[in-house]
Amino acid sequence: MRDQSSHVTMTHEQAVQTLLEHCDFDQQTETIPLIEAYHRVLAEDIVAKQDKPNCLTCLMDSVAVHWDDFENGMPDTSGWERGKQWEFANTGIGMPEGFDSAIVVENVTFSDDDTHVSFAAAPSARFAGTKPAGSTFKEGELLIWSGTVITPGIAAVIAEAGYTQVSVIRKPRVAFIPTGNELVPPQGAPARAKVVDSNSIMLRGKVREWGGEPITYDIVPDDPELIEQALRRACEEADIVVINAGSSKGSADFNIEVLEKIGTVFYHETNHGPGHHSSGAVVDGTPVVGISGPPRGAGFTSDFYLKPLVNQFLGQQPDDVTVLAKLTEDFPTMWHHAKSDKPVGEKRPSVARGDEEFYSIRFVHLSQDAETGELLVTPVGSKAGEIELEGTDAYYPCPSFPGAEKPKKGDMIRVILRAPRL
Amino acid sequence: MRDQSSHVTMTHEQAVQTLLEHCDFDQQTETIPLIEAYHRVLAEDIVAKQDKPNCLTCLMDSVAVHWDDFENGMPDTSGWERGKQWEFANTGIGMPEGFDSAIVVENVTFSDDDTHVSFAAAPSARFAGTKPAGSTFKEGELLIWSGTVITPGIAAVIAEAGYTQVSVIRKPRVAFIPTGNELVPPQGAPARAKVVDSNSIMLRGKVREWGGEPITYDIVPDDPELIEQALRRACEEADIVVINAGSSKGSADFNIEVLEKIGTVFYHETNHGPGHHSSGAVVDGTPVVGISGPPRGAGFTSDFYLKPLVNQFLGQQPDDVTVLAKLTEDFPTMWHHAKSDKPVGEKRPSVARGDEEFYSIRFVHLSQDAETGELLVTPVGSKAGEIELEGTDAYYPCPSFPGAEKPKKGDMIRVILRAPRL
Repeated sequence: MRDQSSHVTMTHEQAVQTLLEHCDFDQQTETIPLIEAYHRVLAEDIVAKQDKPNCLTCLMDSVAVHWDDFENGMPDTSGWERGKQWEFANTGIGMPEGFDSAIVVENVTFSDDDTHVSFAAAPSARFAGTKPAGSTFKEGELLIWSGTVITPGIAAVIAEAGYTQVSVIRKPRVAFIPTGNELVPPQGAPARAKVVDSNSIMLRGKVREWGGEPITYDIVPDDPELIEQALRRACEEADIVVINAGSSKGSADFNIEVLEKIGTVFYHETNHGPGHHSSGAVVDGTPVVGISGPPRGAGFTSDFYLKPLVNQFLGQQPDDVTVLAKLTEDFPTMWHHAKSDKPVGEKRPSVARGDEEFYSIRFVHLSQDAETGELLVTPVGSKAGEIELEGTDAYYPCPSFPGAEKPKKGDMIRVILRAPRL
Repeated sequence: MRDQSSHVTMTHEQAVQTLLEHCDFDQQTETIPLIEAYHRVLAEDIVAKQDKPNCLTCLMDSVAVHWDDFENGMPDTSGWERGKQWEFANTGIGMPEGFDSAIVVENVTFSDDDTHVSFAAAPSARFAGTKPAGSTFKEGELLIWSGTVITPGIAAVIAEAGYTQVSVIRKPRVAFIPTGNELVPPQGAPARAKVVDSNSIMLRGKVREWGGEPITYDIVPDDPELIEQALRRACEEADIVVINAGSSKGSADFNIEVLEKIGTVFYHETNHGPGHHSSGAVVDGTPVVGISGPPRGAGFTSDFYLKPLVNQFLGQQPDDVTVLAKLTEDFPTMWHHAKSDKPVGEKRPSVARGDEEFYSIRFVHLSQDAETGELLVTPVGSKAGEIELEGTDAYYPCPSFPGAEKPKKGDMIRVILRAPRL
């Protein structure tokens, strides 16, 4: 069997940083209809093409008048006609042309047929009860920076600014290559020792949420040539490539060897479990992220190592978002933890890696003390981790090496928020 | 002009509660491919259709052996052949058929041609180094409750459970009817006194994020008959109807009258601004939410009054999510606030509504003190509200009636989180 004792280990942070530094993204922009631009990233500043409002506008439901008629005090309005000396004017609507002042309806008495009016109060000055053109924003005013994610509310502002199309950053194409003789596509009950490839559906969803375009490859068996073919093709057609498992010490773990052959491997081990055998490589400038095979590790190693790349491509902040919260109870013992964790890839190092720093990823819930407002963090029970996990809000890398100081109930710990959903 | 002095006023909470109680939703389920089910709401419990793993499975990269060969201590393995007495077995993979115990590769010495093996340690017992079938979950085990939102991770679990299709709750159809003679669709510069209908694009995006199916109507002019036609049609084809503005005192505000004619209007005023003239009605069991016309109020009155209905339809928690946070600075003065707020619909009541309780909606940012972990809330500057708003995380209903106790810098206040994005 192969010797992989020379595994290069990096911390989570080193690994992300190294990959970010070495990928050479071919970012491009595209112009699309605003109506299809939700959640895309703006590639241009939005500058108002017109004033808003675009004319003198009434502030409240009012009657519009001419200030000149009031300059010398309250006029005799008995002979006034609607449309000549006065007109209705409504909240937020442009003043009828030629009228320059407004009297709120509360100060107006109307004849039964709404043709004649008398006023309890005169306008205080010319333009009373109105706001000028451009009082919300002026033509040429910068409204939204390039790089902003187009939320529904932002889309509305862009429409008001006079745009029906916008330039956005192209979605990164993210190819996922599931590898392993044991894998079968989801369909009916798998044969003995076969395992459903659930990572493809998990990754497709996550990549979409993050603003990328997923490309899912067929399952590739544990054959170095087939893996190399798939990797070469993926690095051609995708901006980011994800390949699962295959970086451990098994008799059929060829992925790292193939990557070493066709590209540069920066690490094959990280300082945490699950996900200990995550790997990172670059092939002709295309980053290749090796994630855990088992669902539990696959989910969060994607959050850890893939999302920062997608964010970077989209010009967004790649760093993890972390928060401080108070631990409400001690974490379950390593024994209990390990017992429920699959794969054991996360267990080996604490055996094999002696006194190197190693962190056991704990999955936690965030909540708030209704009285004090204190943020609280609660460990998620370990049983059936893959499922419960989905309810978790954050990760905590818990020190689990000889002599490590584990946090105790009541300690403030910094947890990594799970990738927010788009 | 019409007398609407008899406006029925409700608090935000009363209004939501009343609408929720009176709508008669025609919920249905539909079965769709799992691969298209991201973010949909499960309408069935997910029960494992098969064990996972489905056979005795190897825990670590190992060599598989027969316990019987070790029952009487370490055997002479010189004559052993791969495939007969031993076989490779890898992490998380089913044990080769017939083998019942595993020795980690770290304890195995292989001949150069990998055909012969010797062991540094014997298995501790039968099944050592393995986990049984069903150790992750067993056939028949309940894995995910009906009512769960299908995240990418949940989709993966559903696939592992043996499902390729799932039953989900049908998306609520949400119709939006933009009304107003002043409105024009987004395209080029509007004529004098015309205003771009930006609410349609805002609502389409929000409804999608919340898991609904938006239906956007053409702009309807201020004509009671056309408004009635549109409302009747919308209440026929949609589960929830949204109509903007038109519930104020203007000479062209017919929406409430029409709703009073064809349905039941529960309120035409709420105790906050912007959004003071929000309204709520039901036509033949279909809720009709009247939101503010101007973008700023339209956005958050949708969050306030539409999202709870969409959530209710989808069987999700309709209540606002609120958090306690410490105010980092006093809110801007009402004068400054009002000055920048459009429409003045939010200003009138503080004039007209005497000592009734009224709340001015403030838009705030949430952050955390890096040292103490305290949640902090910072008022968002008022200028160009429609735009800055999009950066805000939460709303705070600030008391703004005579004698109201306004929170001061350092106070803990409870803010309403903006609708999370799906």
